[in-house]
Amino acid sequence: MPESHLTKELQPLMAQLDLKRDNDKQAEAPVQKAQPKCLQRAKARFLKGVSYFSGDMAVFAKWMEKQFFLLQLLDWVLRGAAQVMFVNNPLSGLIIFAGLILQNYWWALNGFVGTLFATISALILRQNRGAIAAGLYGYNGILVGLLMAVFSNAGNWYWWLLLPNIFMSMMCPVVSSALASINSRWDLPVFTLPFNILVCLHMVATGHYNHHFPQVLIQPRTEFPNITWEEIDLAKLFMSVPVGIGQVYGCDNPWTGGIFIVSLFISSPITCAHAVLGSTIGMLSGLALAAPFGAIYFGLWGYNCVLACIAIGGMFYALTWQVHLLAITCGFFCAYLGSAIANIMSAFGLPACTWPFCLSALTFLLITTETNKIFKLPLAKVNYPEKNLCFYWKMKKQEKQEKLEEERKKKEEQQKASEEEMILNEKEELRLNLSAMEEGNITQILTAPEAESEQRDTGGERITEDPTDETNANCV
Amino acid sequence: MPESHLTKELQPLMAQLDLKRDNDKQAEAPVQKAQPKCLQRAKARFLKGVSYFSGDMAVFAKWMEKQFFLLQLLDWVLRGAAQVMFVNNPLSGLIIFAGLILQNYWWALNGFVGTLFATISALILRQNRGAIAAGLYGYNGILVGLLMAVFSNAGNWYWWLLLPNIFMSMMCPVVSSALASINSRWDLPVFTLPFNILVCLHMVATGHYNHHFPQVLIQPRTEFPNITWEEIDLAKLFMSVPVGIGQVYGCDNPWTGGIFIVSLFISSPITCAHAVLGSTIGMLSGLALAAPFGAIYFGLWGYNCVLACIAIGGMFYALTWQVHLLAITCGFFCAYLGSAIANIMSAFGLPACTWPFCLSALTFLLITTETNKIFKLPLAKVNYPEKNLCFYWKMKKQEKQEKLEEERKKKEEQQKASEEEMILNEKEELRLNLSAMEEGNITQILTAPEAESEQRDTGGERITEDPTDETNANCV
Amino acid sequence: MPESHLTKELQPLMAQLDLKRDNDKQAEAPVQKAQPKCLQRAKARFLKGVSYFSGDMAVFAKWMEKQFFLLQLLDWVLRGAAQVMFVNNPLSGLIIFAGLILQNYWWALNGFVGTLFATISALILRQNRGAIAAGLYGYNGILVGLLMAVFSNAGNWYWWLLLPNIFMSMMCPVVSSALASINSRWDLPVFTLPFNILVCLHMVATGHYNHHFPQVLIQPRTEFPNITWEEIDLAKLFMSVPVGIGQVYGCDNPWTGGIFIVSLFISSPITCAHAVLGSTIGMLSGLALAAPFGAIYFGLWGYNCVLACIAIGGMFYALTWQVHLLAITCGFFCAYLGSAIANIMSAFGLPACTWPFCLSALTFLLITTETNKIFKLPLAKVNYPEKNLCFYWKMKKQEKQEKLEEERKKKEEQQKASEEEMILNEKEELRLNLSAMEEGNITQILTAPEAESEQRDTGGERITEDPTDETNANCV
Repeated sequence: MPESHLTKELQPLMAQLDLKRDNDKQAEAPVQKAQPKCLQRAKARFLKGVSYFSGDMAVFAKWMEKQFFLLQLLDWVLRGAAQVMFVNNPLSGLIIFAGLILQNYWWALNGFVGTLFATISALILRQNRGAIAAGLYGYNGILVGLLMAVFSNAGNWYWWLLLPNIFMSMMCPVVSSALASINSRWDLPVFTLPFNILVCLHMVATGHYNHHFPQVLIQPRTEFPNITWEEIDLAKLFMSVPVGIGQVYGCDNPWTGGIFIVSLFISSPITCAHAVLGSTIGMLSGLALAAPFGAIYFGLWGYNCVLACIAIGGMFYALTWQVHLLAITCGFFCAYLGSAIANIMSAFGLPACTWPFCLSALTFLLITTETNKIFKLPLAKVNYPEKNLCFYWKMKKQEKQEKLEEERKKKEEQQKASEEEMILNEKEELRLNLSAMEEGNITQILTAPEAESEQRDTGGERITEDPTDETNANCV
Repeated sequence: MPESHLTKELQPLMAQLDLKRDNDKQAEAPVQKAQPKCLQRAKARFLKGVSYFSGDMAVFAKWMEKQFFLLQLLDWVLRGAAQVMFVNNPLSGLIIFAGLILQNYWWALNGFVGTLFATISALILRQNRGAIAAGLYGYNGILVGLLMAVFSNAGNWYWWLLLPNIFMSMMCPVVSSALASINSRWDLPVFTLPFNILVCLHMVATGHYNHHFPQVLIQPRTEFPNITWEEIDLAKLFMSVPVGIGQVYGCDNPWTGGIFIVSLFISSPITCAHAVLGSTIGMLSGLALAAPFGAIYFGLWGYNCVLACIAIGGMFYALTWQVHLLAITCGFFCAYLGSAIANIMSAFGLPACTWPFCLSALTFLLITTETNKIFKLPLAKVNYPEKNLCFYWKMKKQEKQEKLEEERKKKEEQQKASEEEMILNEKEELRLNLSAMEEGNITQILTAPEAESEQRDTGGERITEDPTDETNANCV
Repeated sequence: MPESHLTKELQPLMAQLDLKRDNDKQAEAPVQKAQPKCLQRAKARFLKGVSYFSGDMAVFAKWMEKQFFLLQLLDWVLRGAAQVMFVNNPLSGLIIFAGLILQNYWWALNGFVGTLFATISALILRQNRGAIAAGLYGYNGILVGLLMAVFSNAGNWYWWLLLPNIFMSMMCPVVSSALASINSRWDLPVFTLPFNILVCLHMVATGHYNHHFPQVLIQPRTEFPNITWEEIDLAKLFMSVPVGIGQVYGCDNPWTGGIFIVSLFISSPITCAHAVLGSTIGMLSGLALAAPFGAIYFGLWGYNCVLACIAIGGMFYALTWQVHLLAITCGFFCAYLGSAIANIMSAFGLPACTWPFCLSALTFLLITTETNKIFKLPLAKVNYPEKNLCFYWKMKKQEKQEKLEEERKKKEEQQKASEEEMILNEKEELRLNLSAMEEGNITQILTAPEAESEQRDTGGERITEDPTDETNANCV
């Protein structure tokens, strides 16, 4: 799809963005209506400006293709950082890195190293260049790097950690490619499964009692948690929403979570809304299932639901009201699953990672239904939610048109058929009259009517043929 | 398939049923033979009566289609309750609910709620109406409802339990649909996998130490069980067979198990026989693997084997002697697997559920072999064992007929070929005679025999051609 | 493929074998060159001799087909024993059994019983005869038999153990067949997955605290291992390489490992080299991940890497430098995975078996890449590495030839096209001259040039047509 076409497509979508942002401008609305031309032009210019850095920044990506390789690589790494949230946008990636630095320098460094080496490994393994450029080989790398640093018990700036970090990051494209071979049979994405597999692999291979790479100690619960509803802290509960979004990258700083929300909003408001919704659902589920308040405040109930809600709510399904409800259901299911997986994994000293999100989202993407309101996009057509909606609407329009076209054709055919019938009937009558006339004059064609009754369909031709035959005969 | 045809098909099968039931009538057999006409009519009438409530009660299902919606829903719920044992029969479902009520009111209520909401959820999700009407979306629901009540540590009539019960029941069609997307690639059913997944999910998500929904405490074995063969109680061992069948629904009351056996017998005697066989196999396996007697008496070694034996023995394979042996092998394998899975799951405080059945039956359904005595029915053609057999026999007959037809055709072709050869030979002879005669008269065709030896196949045509050529030449 | 063709193919490969073996003969090399004819003949004879017992011994297999059934069965059992290492060679199998006897009589007996009954079970289940004859149904059996004896806590010569041994061995083809149904969708082998599943099943079903079949006690690590780098024993570390190869069959005797190396070398030197390489990689990984020295000396870090290196390095991929590097990467990944799986399995009292090998090799076989240097052989074409290489080279040659052919054809077509154009041009000129001449003489064809300009392509025909038309007209 040419870029110029793409930016045009973006503009109607950005109108929505415009409305949300410029709420304060609404007061001037009546005045604006008075000067429509000038304003429309300004709005168009503004939307065009927005389209340059929102969505998937396709114009920028095209411009990047002609740049220096290291600059390209940086673009891919930034896109990889944002792809954790399904966002294909280098600006969002940059803001996310800012959030990570705010949280912890060492973690941010590990995340960067992970993304970098995952992308390089994908290049070495000759994976699809388009997928690499979209950051699809980097997002597992950043999570592997980050979470290996987060769960390391050796403290910050333990430089040896970079060795397994680089090895595991470089294994990401291998595992991604292998899982894609399996999941593609059902047209499913691999999500963060490679990250889950590789981080769990590293943690359980070394464990808490390892001299080189010790992990933090995680143990299963063996007594009732101390929960008294009077002790609940509403401020912390409210804060748990951005913290839950931050926990996607293993960050517990609410400001970092807030920065992530901004980075999502830049690329796709729908994604952003579902992220906040998901985190809220996770928090509510935690309360419903009597989770210790500490875990809820820490965002552990939120991050999987955030990802699940984004994935179902507009990313892999076209967003309709039915799909929105499905996304909410998936969020609750994911929270339930999150608690279950966390309890199981703790038996091996492992965190839940994003297994709950992967499993619940895959389950909800595998559903088949007889309604056409729940439309799963073909994996090759998945983009950001707004563009997916465009694709869906276009498809629906086309379908409608095709239906109308078909109906029109049917009607035409019916008309034609009736007309043809009429013509045939007329011809028949004419022919009968003719033959009656001929019968009266000549007696040599007495056998003709019988032949004609057998050849009714080609009867029209016979009328013209007969005379010529006769003339020929006469000529000879 | 029209209903009238169906009931006709059932009659030869029901003869078997007839024989088993009316053993006491056998004494009158000689008398019966004396009055064959009257008796045949009575028998036919009896069989027709039986066909109305045995098998899948297809006549009733057809009648139901025109009834009030709530009545239909009740039919689907009852069929769902029986589908746990692969029985598509509302009467069996009703009897099973009677058995459950005999066991425990609260459990029965939870089971009913589970089936109801699973069916409703399937309707909301717009799943296939035929599958819903056959109860295929309800059987996971009843198990989820029942087992959540059975394993709850909060005691009976803890009304809050209905909340997760309803949520999990409503997730059943989601998980069923997702699993079906995967399993359908190998033409496999989903069995009770959704139930296994959802109940384990609920139990491990909450666990024993939960304020809202505590589960019973299950722990792995860490010492030798106290087994002395003198202490074995043969009566209890014998009772473990019906108890094992009852444990399919989590019931330990032998009377409930007995009622379940009756409900199976109504629908399909083959299913019933394999259920009893399976439970016996499980009990024997328990003894062989030195299980604590308590677990065997409690039916924990039986229920998986019951289901596995039913599934393999006639339900998804057409019942032959080879398949019967396969079902027995599957039973033993399932018992082994049951012990293994119970030990693994206990590490997480979980029961084995019906994982062993699902995994062993799926394994045995995935086998490929070069013998045609083990015939796996296409999933769309699976019905109850007796009807499956009918399908298999019909198919075999057709194959035989086709073979005979082919052989007949081959023979005919051979005959034709030999006849043609004879005709050709005759023609050849005639031609030779002709040419000999011509040789005597004319000398200008001296080179012809050489050309003929090269063109033997088209020799017949040459005979007619040559003279015309000559005549043409003569004409010129 | 006819045998004579096969043995011819083997000879160039065996040259390599020859060079390696007969290093001491190199001194005579200059003399050899002086008498080339005589030596070549001797060499050819030697290679032919080698080809009889190296590779897959196809000549022997063909000869076997006409022998007594029990002798055939023995051949299949021996091939099954060697197939654990992907070697389809009865001589290697015999040597491996010798190694097992050297290790432990009882284990060897159990291994033999396992292979035998697995093969018999495959015959009963009517599995593919070719696969049975290649030992593909036996190798899981030998591992099941051996490892059940190795991990039994009942001591040697506990004859009851043969019962579960026979049952589990006979289940091997069932599980193999079922897994093959799944894996074949991705053209993947089942590796030793049936063995892993069945041995784990037996061990966890009985466990350490079982009266009939107690297992050795395996527990997870709960404290730091005592590792001081001064204590490292280099001799033992060096010995761990053959011990690692021996551990594929559960043997810790370095001599047994050495015998296994010989048996590999007989069939395929590439396999042998990768086995040693794999064991070394495993040992290094153990040191890197701070494993207790005892486990490394015992070969527990080696055996999975041995199998993974063999599988990737030439067996299922055609051996190129890129694939060789991939095999090394897979080895390291496998070691990591081995540690992880061992830690997880120990929570259930289970050993790691060969799960790490299976999972890592399957992952690396599922990779898709855009380079043609990493060529995965179709499963039906997999043989031993040397023959795989032959297949790969042949295919490449064919591709090259096809390319050349295509290019040649293209060139020819271009030549033809240009020639045709030339002819057309010449004709056109001729025609123009002709028409000019005709114009001068006759005036009746004045309209022709216009028609010609429209029909340039068929102009050549017109030239010949026109005169004939004219002549005809003239004739008439």
